[in-house]
Amino acid sequence: MTKINVHELGYVRLVNVMGSDLTIVNAARVSYEKESFNLNENDISLLKFLAREGHTSPFRHALAQFEIYAPLMVARQWWKYIVGSAHMEATGDSMDAWNESSRRYVTEEPTFYIPKNNEWRSKPLNSKQGSGDYLGIEIGDKYSKELEKLIELGVSAYEAALADGVCAEQARLFLPSYGMYIRWYWTASLQSISHFIVQRSKKDAQKEIRDYATAIIELIKPHFPASLEELIK
Amino acid sequence: MTKINVHELGYVRLVNVMGSDLTIVNAARVSYEKESFNLNENDISLLKFLAREGHTSPFRHALAQFEIYAPLMVARQWWKYIVGSAHMEATGDSMDAWNESSRRYVTEEPTFYIPKNNEWRSKPLNSKQGSGDYLGIEIGDKYSKELEKLIELGVSAYEAALADGVCAEQARLFLPSYGMYIRWYWTASLQSISHFIVQRSKKDAQKEIRDYATAIIELIKPHFPASLEELIK
Amino acid sequence: MTKINVHELGYVRLVNVMGSDLTIVNAARVSYEKESFNLNENDISLLKFLAREGHTSPFRHALAQFEIYAPLMVARQWWKYIVGSAHMEATGDSMDAWNESSRRYVTEEPTFYIPKNNEWRSKPLNSKQGSGDYLGIEIGDKYSKELEKLIELGVSAYEAALADGVCAEQARLFLPSYGMYIRWYWTASLQSISHFIVQRSKKDAQKEIRDYATAIIELIKPHFPASLEELIK
Amino acid sequence: MTKINVHELGYVRLVNVMGSDLTIVNAARVSYEKESFNLNENDISLLKFLAREGHTSPFRHALAQFEIYAPLMVARQWWKYIVGSAHMEATGDSMDAWNESSRRYVTEEPTFYIPKNNEWRSKPLNSKQGSGDYLGIEIGDKYSKELEKLIELGVSAYEAALADGVCAEQARLFLPSYGMYIRWYWTASLQSISHFIVQRSKKDAQKEIRDYATAIIELIKPHFPASLEELIK
Repeated sequence: MTKINVHELGYVRLVNVMGSDLTIVNAARVSYEKESFNLNENDISLLKFLAREGHTSPFRHALAQFEIYAPLMVARQWWKYIVGSAHMEATGDSMDAWNESSRRYVTEEPTFYIPKNNEWRSKPLNSKQGSGDYLGIEIGDKYSKELEKLIELGVSAYEAALADGVCAEQARLFLPSYGMYIRWYWTASLQSISHFIVQRSKKDAQKEIRDYATAIIELIKPHFPASLEELIK
Repeated sequence: MTKINVHELGYVRLVNVMGSDLTIVNAARVSYEKESFNLNENDISLLKFLAREGHTSPFRHALAQFEIYAPLMVARQWWKYIVGSAHMEATGDSMDAWNESSRRYVTEEPTFYIPKNNEWRSKPLNSKQGSGDYLGIEIGDKYSKELEKLIELGVSAYEAALADGVCAEQARLFLPSYGMYIRWYWTASLQSISHFIVQRSKKDAQKEIRDYATAIIELIKPHFPASLEELIK
Repeated sequence: MTKINVHELGYVRLVNVMGSDLTIVNAARVSYEKESFNLNENDISLLKFLAREGHTSPFRHALAQFEIYAPLMVARQWWKYIVGSAHMEATGDSMDAWNESSRRYVTEEPTFYIPKNNEWRSKPLNSKQGSGDYLGIEIGDKYSKELEKLIELGVSAYEAALADGVCAEQARLFLPSYGMYIRWYWTASLQSISHFIVQRSKKDAQKEIRDYATAIIELIKPHFPASLEELIK
Repeated sequence: MTKINVHELGYVRLVNVMGSDLTIVNAARVSYEKESFNLNENDISLLKFLAREGHTSPFRHALAQFEIYAPLMVARQWWKYIVGSAHMEATGDSMDAWNESSRRYVTEEPTFYIPKNNEWRSKPLNSKQGSGDYLGIEIGDKYSKELEKLIELGVSAYEAALADGVCAEQARLFLPSYGMYIRWYWTASLQSISHFIVQRSKKDAQKEIRDYATAIIELIKPHFPASLEELIK
């Protein structure tokens, strides 16, 4: 399996992988002139030790590349979790590559994420971020429809402005962009991938990004079964 | 002067500064046990040499802190120019600190950037990015009003959703967020500041961010006159 | 006090400082349009919260510049703790500037760190890194003298090679360089400075670098008393 | 070919590779929903364009892992070219992983780089760094032998100190460490690899590290023939 759909329109695709659990074991043992070719008990103990003690540098020698299609608010949160948090919250140089499409010059028609009527969530009780239980379908229905209508108005105005000769970089002011889909390639070390996955379990992580993290886990786990188990537990 | 207004609602404020032109000169001469206390001809020649040859590491020892209030599309472009470009286009570790307000839990009422009727620009003739000449006031008037109306609709729906108990992280889907103002602190080395300023002169830089870059120059130049002249020419 | 001697020949000098405890408080509260001008109880509670929860990004807006003179082995370990660990052990983008003298072209005569006869330490009992108790003065005396002799031989050969026209980059092969002094400027955020200080308390940190960390604490503490107390406890 | 010897004792080994020229092409075209499966003329033109204009971010999605055995002075210069220059000279976040052996606890016997009698170089005529022509064999012979002798003295003292119970972190003060061999794993993006290779062609790059860069080129070129040609010309 190399592609998993997320929500109605989004997806994650595993494009490429480098290395295996052995890659990490051998990087960690660089001081000794030994190399493992089959993962044995000692190797698994070493992976446990590295993950437990936070010695995550050996996990930087294994990497994977994904193609992702997700709403802008998911993309920005994702980027903040990895590249951003490396710079801001001191959680580590992220060893990531990231190339995304840009609304400043892409001309393909914009598509948007609209929660279904049973997917709208309440505000959380004791927290400033995140969300609580699902709201009733009646309220959900109201806002799914209203959002659809507002997006239609925004896209119409955006397209009219473009047709009237307005530059794309100003015309985009009409787009309700938090929900607009973008596509990107993400190449990341296993250290960075597991950091991203761990962020998702925080109670203030947004449901929409957690759905993408789950897809990442399913795609990557068969390639690094022992490492991933230790890194994300 | 420590604060400059940008557009109708935005601004840049210089909060703090560390170092002077001499800081750079002395950092560059670390190999020799000499320290300059007054900027002389030799020192200026050294600054010229460092800037011309791209030996910009000494410019990392001088820093400034700004408070900025700007539309989200400016903030994202800014961040991409510095932190992002460090990661993506190999233009350097940015040595920046960045703390911004977040729409996921801020409750202050959103405000938006709306180009005035004489500020709408045409699409560029020979480029996929950027913009060309100003459009006529008639067209401008039409889109200023339409944008204002769309923002009103979006904000109304956003507030109704919040009032109905929808979580902020989903309610924000109604906001035409490219133009929404956010506030942030940016602390950056002179290396990073000048990198940002240079980006603005690229022909595909958006007019709105160039207006902010101009404010940064005016605020910082009195503190590093000789360095800035070399770095941004 | 702006300069503290370390060992016989080394030192740390505080060259410049930007910000105060208030800088951090205000950066953390960027979402609200409030600014503190005197550090009150609430502000100190906020500093405690930020340090305890690892929300260290606000500490990046306060910085200090140091000039340091230390043996190469201390410099390399220092660099590894900050820039290196940012890249390798995922402990964060270090927001550091670093300019050092280089033996590839400096011609000033090399000077060396030689532990005194009561400063040689035993190997640790239960660890592969670090050191244990002090060894007797007799053994210490023997190795202080031997090291001095070996350095003399190395420097003589180095200088003879230079005199015979050998390039500096090869002639340096004769130098017992772990103990050779170099001089550098280090400009770092309070986030990075406290990260460095915390590393020193690890049981495998080398005594020689701990002596420098102690000097850094003494120099920086008067400028950020509340922040530093929270960050390094 | 996956392993190339460098000098008498050193080597570079290609451990793993991810991606191909197509990986870069597809990452650059993320905005369009197209994917190339065979490298055609248009794709090569795109690679030329990306390399020429410095749009190197797509080259971050292809990576390789190497095992390297080299003198410490080569390792430090290498690290400075990539991780260090990312931080210092603003040449880009390096997207590298690096795990090396450490003399603080490795117990395998140290080995050293000793230039042969025809490998000693003169100091350069018009530069503070680098080297000039080869010196005569007579001078070379003298210094090869002296260096060998000094290393023997240093290693003897080092081992005697260890035997007397001195901790490894102090005992290493006896080692002429610039020439001491260390082993490390380096995983790097094609962007970072080509940056490293380009550094080597600078006139002040040390001959010893250029020999390693040549080995890297030979190992990596078959995997990214079109990209490498553009990146390093």
